[in-house]
Amino acid sequence: MPPHHAKKNISVQTIRRLPQYLRIFYKLHGYGRDLVSSTVLSKQTHLLPIVVKKDLQAVGAPSKLRAGFKVAGCIEVIEQFLGWNNLNKAFLIGVGHLGEALLGFTGFKNHGLEIVCAFDTAPDKVSQTIHGVPVYHTAQIATIITQENLKIAILTVPAYSAQGIADTLVAAGIKAIWNFAPIRLQVPEGVIVQQEDISSGLAELCAKLKTN
Amino acid sequence: MPPHHAKKNISVQTIRRLPQYLRIFYKLHGYGRDLVSSTVLSKQTHLLPIVVKKDLQAVGAPSKLRAGFKVAGCIEVIEQFLGWNNLNKAFLIGVGHLGEALLGFTGFKNHGLEIVCAFDTAPDKVSQTIHGVPVYHTAQIATIITQENLKIAILTVPAYSAQGIADTLVAAGIKAIWNFAPIRLQVPEGVIVQQEDISSGLAELCAKLKTN
Repeated sequence: MPPHHAKKNISVQTIRRLPQYLRIFYKLHGYGRDLVSSTVLSKQTHLLPIVVKKDLQAVGAPSKLRAGFKVAGCIEVIEQFLGWNNLNKAFLIGVGHLGEALLGFTGFKNHGLEIVCAFDTAPDKVSQTIHGVPVYHTAQIATIITQENLKIAILTVPAYSAQGIADTLVAAGIKAIWNFAPIRLQVPEGVIVQQEDISSGLAELCAKLKTN
Repeated sequence: MPPHHAKKNISVQTIRRLPQYLRIFYKLHGYGRDLVSSTVLSKQTHLLPIVVKKDLQAVGAPSKLRAGFKVAGCIEVIEQFLGWNNLNKAFLIGVGHLGEALLGFTGFKNHGLEIVCAFDTAPDKVSQTIHGVPVYHTAQIATIITQENLKIAILTVPAYSAQGIADTLVAAGIKAIWNFAPIRLQVPEGVIVQQEDISSGLAELCAKLKTN
Protein backbone atom coordinates (compact mmCIF):
# COMPACT_ATOMS: atom_id res chain seq x y z
CA MET A 1 0.00 0.00 0.00
CA PRO A 2 1.32 3.45 -0.82
CA PRO A 3 2.06 5.81 2.05
CA HIS A 4 -0.96 7.96 2.83
CA HIS A 5 0.66 11.26 1.91
CA ALA A 6 1.24 9.99 -1.64
CA LYS A 7 -2.51 9.53 -2.17
CA LYS A 8 -3.33 13.14 -1.48
CA ASN A 9 -1.23 14.52 -4.34
CA ILE A 10 -2.57 12.32 -7.10
CA SER A 11 -3.96 14.41 -9.95
CA VAL A 12 -7.50 14.07 -11.27
CA GLN A 13 -6.09 13.12 -14.66
CA THR A 14 -4.16 10.22 -13.11
CA ILE A 15 -7.24 9.05 -11.20
CA ARG A 16 -9.33 9.16 -14.39
CA ARG A 17 -6.77 6.94 -16.15
CA LEU A 18 -6.65 4.27 -13.42
CA PRO A 19 -9.67 2.24 -14.69
CA GLN A 20 -7.95 1.97 -18.06
CA TYR A 21 -4.81 0.45 -16.50
CA LEU A 22 -6.95 -1.80 -14.32
CA ARG A 23 -8.73 -3.28 -17.36
CA ILE A 24 -5.36 -4.11 -18.95
CA PHE A 25 -4.03 -5.64 -15.73
CA TYR A 26 -7.20 -7.80 -15.40
CA LYS A 27 -6.69 -9.07 -18.95
CA LEU A 28 -2.98 -9.82 -18.40
CA HIS A 29 -3.83 -11.54 -15.12
CA GLY A 30 -6.35 -13.68 -16.99
CA TYR A 31 -3.59 -14.71 -19.42
CA GLY A 32 -1.40 -15.71 -16.45
CA ARG A 33 1.11 -12.89 -16.96
CA ASP A 34 3.08 -11.81 -13.86
CA LEU A 35 4.95 -8.76 -15.19
CA VAL A 36 4.33 -6.06 -17.77
CA SER A 37 6.62 -3.29 -19.02
CA SER A 38 5.60 0.35 -19.24
CA THR A 39 6.34 0.12 -22.98
CA VAL A 40 3.62 -2.51 -23.43
CA LEU A 41 1.22 -0.51 -21.23
CA SER A 42 2.05 2.56 -23.27
CA LYS A 43 1.18 0.81 -26.55
CA GLN A 44 -2.13 -0.47 -25.21
CA THR A 45 -3.23 2.84 -23.70
CA HIS A 46 -1.76 5.15 -26.37
CA LEU A 47 -0.16 7.14 -23.51
CA LEU A 48 3.51 8.09 -23.25
CA PRO A 49 5.60 5.58 -21.22
CA ILE A 50 6.58 8.37 -18.79
CA VAL A 51 2.88 9.12 -18.13
CA VAL A 52 2.17 5.43 -17.48
CA LYS A 53 5.15 5.19 -15.10
CA LYS A 54 4.25 8.33 -13.17
CA ASP A 55 0.58 7.34 -12.88
CA LEU A 56 1.37 3.88 -11.54
CA GLN A 57 4.14 5.06 -9.23
CA ALA A 58 1.72 7.67 -7.81
CA VAL A 59 -0.55 4.91 -6.46
CA GLY A 60 2.44 2.89 -5.26
CA ALA A 61 2.22 0.17 -7.92
CA PRO A 62 4.84 -2.53 -7.20
CA SER A 63 7.51 -3.20 -9.84
CA LYS A 64 10.57 -5.35 -10.40
CA LEU A 65 13.78 -3.68 -11.53
CA ARG A 66 14.25 -3.83 -15.33
CA ALA A 67 11.32 -6.30 -15.61
CA GLY A 68 8.27 -4.11 -15.28
CA PHE A 69 5.20 -3.77 -13.10
CA LYS A 70 3.84 -6.69 -11.08
CA VAL A 71 0.39 -7.45 -12.52
CA ALA A 72 -1.33 -8.89 -9.42
CA GLY A 73 0.19 -6.27 -7.14
CA CYS A 74 -0.93 -3.44 -9.43
CA ILE A 75 -4.52 -4.74 -9.43
CA GLU A 76 -4.49 -4.84 -5.63
CA VAL A 77 -3.03 -1.35 -5.24
CA ILE A 78 -5.40 0.32 -7.75
CA GLU A 79 -8.49 -1.50 -6.42
CA GLN A 80 -7.55 -0.48 -2.91
CA PHE A 81 -6.88 3.12 -3.93
CA LEU A 82 -10.32 3.41 -5.55
CA GLY A 83 -12.09 1.30 -2.95
CA TRP A 84 -13.12 -1.10 -5.71
CA ASN A 85 -12.17 -4.16 -3.64
CA ASN A 86 -15.47 -3.62 -1.79
CA LEU A 87 -18.87 -3.24 -3.43
CA ASN A 88 -20.54 0.14 -2.80
CA LYS A 89 -24.31 0.02 -2.94
CA ALA A 90 -25.85 2.79 -5.00
CA PHE A 91 -29.26 3.76 -6.40
CA LEU A 92 -30.35 5.60 -9.51
CA ILE A 93 -32.96 8.35 -9.91
CA GLY A 94 -34.54 8.98 -13.31
CA VAL A 95 -35.07 5.93 -15.54
CA GLY A 96 -35.03 7.71 -18.92
CA HIS A 97 -32.79 6.61 -21.79
CA LEU A 98 -29.57 7.52 -20.01
CA GLY A 99 -30.75 5.98 -16.71
CA GLU A 100 -31.71 2.77 -18.48
CA ALA A 101 -28.35 2.69 -20.29
CA LEU A 102 -26.57 2.93 -16.92
CA LEU A 103 -28.79 0.24 -15.35
CA GLY A 104 -27.81 -2.04 -18.22
CA PHE A 105 -24.08 -1.36 -17.92
CA THR A 106 -22.57 -4.62 -16.68
CA GLY A 107 -19.17 -3.11 -15.96
CA PHE A 108 -20.10 -1.38 -12.69
CA LYS A 109 -19.66 -4.48 -10.52
CA ASN A 110 -16.00 -4.65 -11.56
CA HIS A 111 -15.79 -1.01 -10.52
CA GLY A 112 -17.00 -1.51 -6.97
CA LEU A 113 -20.53 -0.31 -7.69
CA GLU A 114 -23.80 -2.18 -7.34
CA ILE A 115 -27.02 -0.37 -8.29
CA VAL A 116 -29.59 -1.95 -5.96
CA CYS A 117 -32.68 0.08 -6.88
CA ALA A 118 -33.96 2.91 -9.06
CA PHE A 119 -36.60 5.63 -8.78
CA ASP A 120 -38.91 7.32 -11.27
CA THR A 121 -42.35 8.95 -11.36
CA ALA A 122 -43.63 7.54 -14.69
CA PRO A 123 -46.44 4.97 -14.10
CA ASP A 124 -45.01 2.68 -16.81
CA LYS A 125 -41.65 2.57 -15.00
CA VAL A 126 -42.66 2.32 -11.31
CA SER A 127 -42.95 -1.28 -9.97
CA GLN A 128 -41.10 -2.62 -13.02
CA THR A 129 -37.75 -4.42 -12.89
CA ILE A 130 -35.29 -3.01 -15.43
CA HIS A 131 -32.08 -4.95 -16.11
CA GLY A 132 -32.75 -6.78 -12.84
CA VAL A 133 -33.10 -3.59 -10.82
CA PRO A 134 -36.45 -2.78 -9.11
CA VAL A 135 -37.92 0.67 -9.83
CA TYR A 136 -39.81 2.50 -7.05
CA HIS A 137 -41.75 5.77 -7.05
CA THR A 138 -39.60 8.85 -6.39
CA ALA A 139 -41.84 9.70 -3.41
CA GLN A 140 -40.34 6.68 -1.61
CA ILE A 141 -36.69 7.79 -1.93
CA ALA A 142 -36.16 8.95 1.67
CA THR A 143 -37.83 5.87 3.20
CA ILE A 144 -36.01 3.30 1.08
CA ILE A 145 -32.50 4.77 1.18
CA THR A 146 -32.70 5.14 4.97
CA GLN A 147 -33.96 1.55 5.32
CA GLU A 148 -31.26 0.17 3.03
CA ASN A 149 -28.58 2.55 4.32
CA LEU A 150 -27.62 3.64 0.78
CA LYS A 151 -25.02 6.41 0.51
CA ILE A 152 -24.37 6.89 -3.23
CA ALA A 153 -26.95 8.38 -5.60
CA ILE A 154 -26.78 8.38 -9.40
CA LEU A 155 -28.80 11.29 -10.73
CA THR A 156 -30.12 10.95 -14.29
CA VAL A 157 -33.12 13.30 -14.11
CA PRO A 158 -33.76 16.42 -16.24
CA ALA A 159 -31.95 19.61 -15.17
CA TYR A 160 -35.12 21.29 -13.84
CA SER A 161 -35.80 18.60 -11.22
CA ALA A 162 -32.19 17.85 -10.22
CA GLN A 163 -31.76 20.42 -7.42
CA GLY A 164 -35.06 19.49 -5.72
CA ILE A 165 -34.11 15.82 -5.68
CA ALA A 166 -30.59 16.65 -4.49
CA ASP A 167 -32.13 18.52 -1.52
CA THR A 168 -34.21 15.43 -0.65
CA LEU A 169 -31.13 13.24 -0.91
CA VAL A 170 -29.04 15.49 1.32
CA ALA A 171 -31.84 15.60 3.92
CA ALA A 172 -31.92 11.78 3.85
CA GLY A 173 -28.20 11.63 4.65
CA ILE A 174 -26.67 10.84 1.24
CA LYS A 175 -22.86 11.17 1.09
CA ALA A 176 -22.19 11.24 -2.64
CA ILE A 177 -24.08 12.21 -5.80
CA TRP A 178 -22.93 11.17 -9.27
CA ASN A 179 -24.72 13.85 -11.27
CA PHE A 180 -25.52 13.41 -14.96
CA ALA A 181 -28.01 16.30 -15.04
CA PRO A 182 -26.53 19.34 -16.83
CA ILE A 183 -26.69 21.65 -13.79
CA ARG A 184 -24.33 22.51 -10.93
CA LEU A 185 -25.94 21.24 -7.71
CA GLN A 186 -25.82 23.28 -4.51
CA VAL A 187 -25.05 20.92 -1.61
CA PRO A 188 -23.71 21.43 1.92
CA GLU A 189 -20.01 20.93 2.63
CA GLY A 190 -19.14 17.27 3.12
CA VAL A 191 -21.46 15.98 0.38
CA ILE A 192 -19.50 14.87 -2.66
CA VAL A 193 -20.81 15.74 -6.12
CA GLN A 194 -19.19 14.16 -9.14
CA GLN A 195 -20.41 16.09 -12.18
CA GLU A 196 -20.56 14.35 -15.55
CA ASP A 197 -20.68 16.86 -18.35
CA ILE A 198 -21.13 15.53 -21.87
CA SER A 199 -20.05 18.88 -23.29
CA SER A 200 -16.56 18.54 -21.74
CA GLY A 201 -15.79 15.58 -23.99
CA LEU A 202 -17.25 17.43 -26.96
CA ALA A 203 -15.08 20.47 -26.16
CA GLU A 204 -11.98 18.24 -26.14
CA LEU A 205 -12.96 16.72 -29.47
CA CYS A 206 -13.62 20.13 -31.05
CA ALA A 207 -10.34 21.59 -29.76
CA LYS A 208 -8.48 18.64 -31.31
CA LEU A 209 -10.36 19.10 -34.60
CA LYS A 210 -9.45 22.80 -34.72
CA THR A 211 -5.71 22.19 -34.23
CA ASN A 212 -5.57 19.10 -36.48
CA MET B 1 -8.60 36.38 -30.91
CA PRO B 2 -5.76 34.87 -28.89
CA PRO B 3 -2.35 34.48 -30.55
CA HIS B 4 -2.00 31.07 -32.14
CA HIS B 5 0.86 29.90 -29.93
CA ALA B 6 -1.31 30.38 -26.83
CA LYS B 7 -3.86 27.85 -28.10
CA LYS B 8 -1.37 25.04 -28.31
CA ASN B 9 -0.50 25.08 -24.63
CA ILE B 10 -4.01 24.97 -23.22
CA SER B 11 -4.45 22.00 -20.91
CA VAL B 12 -7.12 19.36 -21.37
CA GLN B 13 -8.57 20.30 -17.98
CA THR B 14 -9.00 23.92 -19.09
CA ILE B 15 -10.62 22.83 -22.36
CA ARG B 16 -13.05 20.56 -20.46
CA ARG B 17 -14.10 23.51 -18.26
CA LEU B 18 -14.79 25.91 -21.16
CA PRO B 19 -18.40 24.75 -21.78
CA GLN B 20 -19.17 25.48 -18.13
CA TYR B 21 -17.96 29.08 -18.44
CA LEU B 22 -19.76 29.44 -21.74
CA ARG B 23 -23.10 28.46 -20.17
CA ILE B 24 -22.66 31.11 -17.48
CA PHE B 25 -21.66 33.77 -20.02
CA TYR B 26 -24.75 32.92 -22.15
CA LYS B 27 -26.98 33.35 -19.09
CA LEU B 28 -25.35 36.67 -18.09
CA HIS B 29 -25.62 37.86 -21.69
CA GLY B 30 -29.32 37.02 -21.59
CA TYR B 31 -29.69 39.18 -18.47
CA GLY B 32 -27.98 42.05 -20.29
CA ARG B 33 -24.82 41.96 -18.18
CA ASP B 34 -21.65 43.36 -19.82
CA LEU B 35 -19.03 42.45 -17.22
CA VAL B 36 -18.49 39.70 -14.65
CA SER B 37 -15.79 39.32 -12.00
CA SER B 38 -13.77 36.15 -11.50
CA THR B 39 -15.19 36.05 -7.94
CA VAL B 40 -18.73 35.67 -9.29
CA LEU B 41 -17.57 33.10 -11.85
CA SER B 42 -15.77 31.27 -9.06
CA LYS B 43 -18.95 31.07 -6.94
CA GLN B 44 -21.03 29.78 -9.83
CA THR B 45 -18.52 27.14 -10.94
CA HIS B 46 -17.22 26.12 -7.49
CA LEU B 47 -13.69 26.62 -8.87
CA LEU B 48 -10.96 28.74 -7.30
CA PRO B 49 -10.80 32.33 -8.68
CA ILE B 50 -7.20 31.75 -9.79
CA VAL B 51 -8.29 28.70 -11.83
CA VAL B 52 -11.08 30.72 -13.48
CA LYS B 53 -8.67 33.56 -14.30
CA LYS B 54 -6.00 31.27 -15.73
CA ASP B 55 -8.51 29.29 -17.80
CA LEU B 56 -10.04 32.40 -19.34
CA GLN B 57 -6.71 34.13 -19.91
CA ALA B 58 -5.46 30.98 -21.68
CA VAL B 59 -8.08 31.39 -24.42
CA GLY B 60 -7.49 35.15 -24.58
CA ALA B 61 -10.75 36.20 -22.90
CA PRO B 62 -11.04 40.02 -22.94
CA SER B 63 -11.27 41.82 -19.60
CA LYS B 64 -11.50 45.35 -18.22
CA LEU B 65 -9.09 46.38 -15.47
CA ARG B 66 -10.62 46.00 -11.98
CA ALA B 67 -14.07 45.40 -13.51
CA GLY B 68 -13.91 41.80 -14.69
CA PHE B 69 -14.32 39.84 -17.88
CA LYS B 70 -16.30 41.17 -20.85
CA VAL B 71 -19.29 38.84 -21.27
CA ALA B 72 -19.89 39.18 -25.02
CA GLY B 73 -16.17 39.09 -25.79
CA CYS B 74 -15.70 35.94 -23.72
CA ILE B 75 -18.52 34.16 -25.56
CA GLU B 76 -16.93 35.06 -28.89
CA VAL B 77 -13.45 33.93 -27.87
CA ILE B 78 -14.55 30.59 -26.36
CA GLU B 79 -16.92 29.78 -29.25
CA GLN B 80 -14.15 30.57 -31.71
CA PHE B 81 -11.61 28.50 -29.78
CA LEU B 82 -13.91 25.45 -29.81
CA GLY B 83 -15.24 26.08 -33.31
CA TRP B 84 -18.75 26.31 -31.84
CA ASN B 85 -19.59 29.42 -33.86
CA ASN B 86 -20.12 27.05 -36.80
CA LEU B 87 -22.33 23.96 -36.79
CA ASN B 88 -20.44 20.70 -37.37
CA LYS B 89 -22.56 17.98 -38.95
CA ALA B 90 -22.24 14.60 -37.25
CA PHE B 91 -23.94 11.20 -37.32
CA LEU B 92 -24.51 8.54 -34.70
CA ILE B 93 -24.04 4.78 -34.93
CA GLY B 94 -25.90 2.50 -32.50
CA VAL B 95 -29.37 3.61 -31.43
CA GLY B 96 -29.53 1.77 -28.09
CA HIS B 97 -30.42 3.51 -24.82
CA LEU B 98 -27.29 5.66 -24.78
CA GLY B 99 -27.58 6.48 -28.48
CA GLU B 100 -31.22 7.50 -28.06
CA ALA B 101 -30.32 9.62 -25.02
CA LEU B 102 -27.72 11.47 -27.13
CA LEU B 103 -30.16 11.93 -30.04
CA GLY B 104 -32.58 13.53 -27.56
CA PHE B 105 -30.01 15.88 -26.05
CA THR B 106 -31.06 19.35 -27.15
CA GLY B 107 -27.87 21.01 -25.95
CA PHE B 108 -25.64 19.91 -28.85
CA LYS B 109 -26.74 22.69 -31.21
CA ASN B 110 -25.41 25.25 -28.72
CA HIS B 111 -22.19 23.28 -28.79
CA GLY B 112 -21.64 23.47 -32.53
CA LEU B 113 -22.91 19.95 -33.20
CA GLU B 114 -25.83 18.84 -35.33
CA ILE B 115 -26.61 15.12 -35.55
CA VAL B 116 -28.08 14.77 -39.04
CA CYS B 117 -28.62 10.99 -39.17
CA ALA B 118 -28.17 7.75 -37.25
CA PHE B 119 -27.44 4.12 -38.09
CA ASP B 120 -28.50 0.80 -36.57
CA THR B 121 -29.14 -2.79 -37.66
CA ALA B 122 -32.31 -3.51 -35.63
CA PRO B 123 -35.40 -3.76 -37.89
CA ASP B 124 -37.51 -1.80 -35.38
CA LYS B 125 -35.03 1.12 -35.51
CA VAL B 126 -34.13 1.31 -39.22
CA SER B 127 -36.32 3.72 -41.27
CA GLN B 128 -37.69 5.29 -38.08
CA THR B 129 -37.19 8.93 -37.09
CA ILE B 130 -35.98 9.28 -33.49
CA HIS B 131 -36.02 12.73 -31.90
CA GLY B 132 -36.28 14.14 -35.42
CA VAL B 133 -33.24 12.23 -36.69
CA PRO B 134 -33.65 9.63 -39.48
CA VAL B 135 -32.21 6.16 -38.79
CA TYR B 136 -30.64 4.18 -41.65
CA HIS B 137 -29.26 0.65 -41.83
CA THR B 138 -25.60 0.34 -40.81
CA ALA B 139 -24.83 -1.21 -44.23
CA GLN B 140 -25.48 2.23 -45.76
CA ILE B 141 -22.90 4.10 -43.66
CA ALA B 142 -20.19 4.51 -46.32
CA THR B 143 -22.65 5.62 -49.03
CA ILE B 144 -24.51 8.16 -46.92
CA ILE B 145 -21.57 9.77 -45.15
CA THR B 146 -19.75 10.20 -48.47
CA GLN B 147 -22.88 11.68 -50.07
CA GLU B 148 -23.49 14.06 -47.19
CA ASN B 149 -19.77 14.76 -46.64
CA LEU B 150 -20.01 14.00 -42.91
CA LYS B 151 -16.74 14.05 -40.95
CA ILE B 152 -17.69 13.42 -37.28
CA ALA B 153 -18.99 10.06 -36.05
CA ILE B 154 -20.55 9.38 -32.65
CA LEU B 155 -20.07 5.73 -31.76
CA THR B 156 -22.57 4.22 -29.29
CA VAL B 157 -22.34 0.55 -30.28
CA PRO B 158 -21.32 -2.40 -28.04
CA ALA B 159 -17.57 -2.92 -27.51
CA TYR B 160 -17.42 -6.03 -29.74
CA SER B 161 -18.60 -4.23 -32.87
CA ALA B 162 -16.82 -0.88 -32.34
CA GLN B 163 -13.49 -1.65 -34.06
CA GLY B 164 -15.14 -3.11 -37.18
CA ILE B 165 -17.31 -0.02 -37.57
CA ALA B 166 -14.35 2.27 -36.88
CA ASP B 167 -12.48 0.57 -39.77
CA THR B 168 -15.45 1.22 -42.09
CA LEU B 169 -15.56 4.85 -40.96
CA VAL B 170 -11.85 5.39 -41.52
CA ALA B 171 -12.08 3.82 -45.00
CA ALA B 172 -14.95 6.23 -45.77
CA GLY B 173 -12.78 9.22 -44.86
CA ILE B 174 -14.05 10.11 -41.40
CA LYS B 175 -11.88 12.65 -39.51
CA ALA B 176 -13.10 12.31 -35.94
CA ILE B 177 -14.78 9.63 -33.82
CA TRP B 178 -16.45 10.41 -30.50
CA ASN B 179 -16.30 6.94 -28.97
CA PHE B 180 -18.66 5.86 -26.17
CA ALA B 181 -17.88 2.14 -26.59
CA PRO B 182 -15.67 0.86 -23.75
CA ILE B 183 -12.72 -0.09 -25.97
CA ARG B 184 -9.60 1.69 -27.28
CA LEU B 185 -9.97 2.00 -31.05
CA GLN B 186 -7.02 1.45 -33.38
CA VAL B 187 -7.07 4.16 -36.05
CA PRO B 188 -4.45 5.56 -38.45
CA GLU B 189 -2.57 8.74 -37.55
CA GLY B 190 -4.58 11.85 -38.36
CA VAL B 191 -7.93 10.41 -37.27
CA ILE B 192 -9.07 11.92 -33.97
CA VAL B 193 -10.63 9.66 -31.35
CA GLN B 194 -12.26 11.23 -28.32
CA GLN B 195 -12.82 8.44 -25.80
CA GLU B 196 -15.64 8.75 -23.28
CA ASP B 197 -15.11 6.43 -20.36
CA ILE B 198 -17.86 6.25 -17.75
CA SER B 199 -15.47 4.54 -15.33
CA SER B 200 -13.21 7.64 -15.25
CA GLY B 201 -15.95 9.65 -13.55
CA LEU B 202 -16.66 6.77 -11.19
CA ALA B 203 -12.95 6.54 -10.31
CA GLU B 204 -12.96 10.26 -9.46
CA LEU B 205 -16.04 9.85 -7.29
CA CYS B 206 -14.58 6.83 -5.46
CA ALA B 207 -11.23 8.53 -4.86
CA LYS B 208 -13.10 11.50 -3.31
CA LEU B 209 -15.19 9.12 -1.17
CA LYS B 210 -12.05 7.38 0.12
CA THR B 211 -10.32 10.60 1.18
CA ASN B 212 -13.50 12.23 2.55
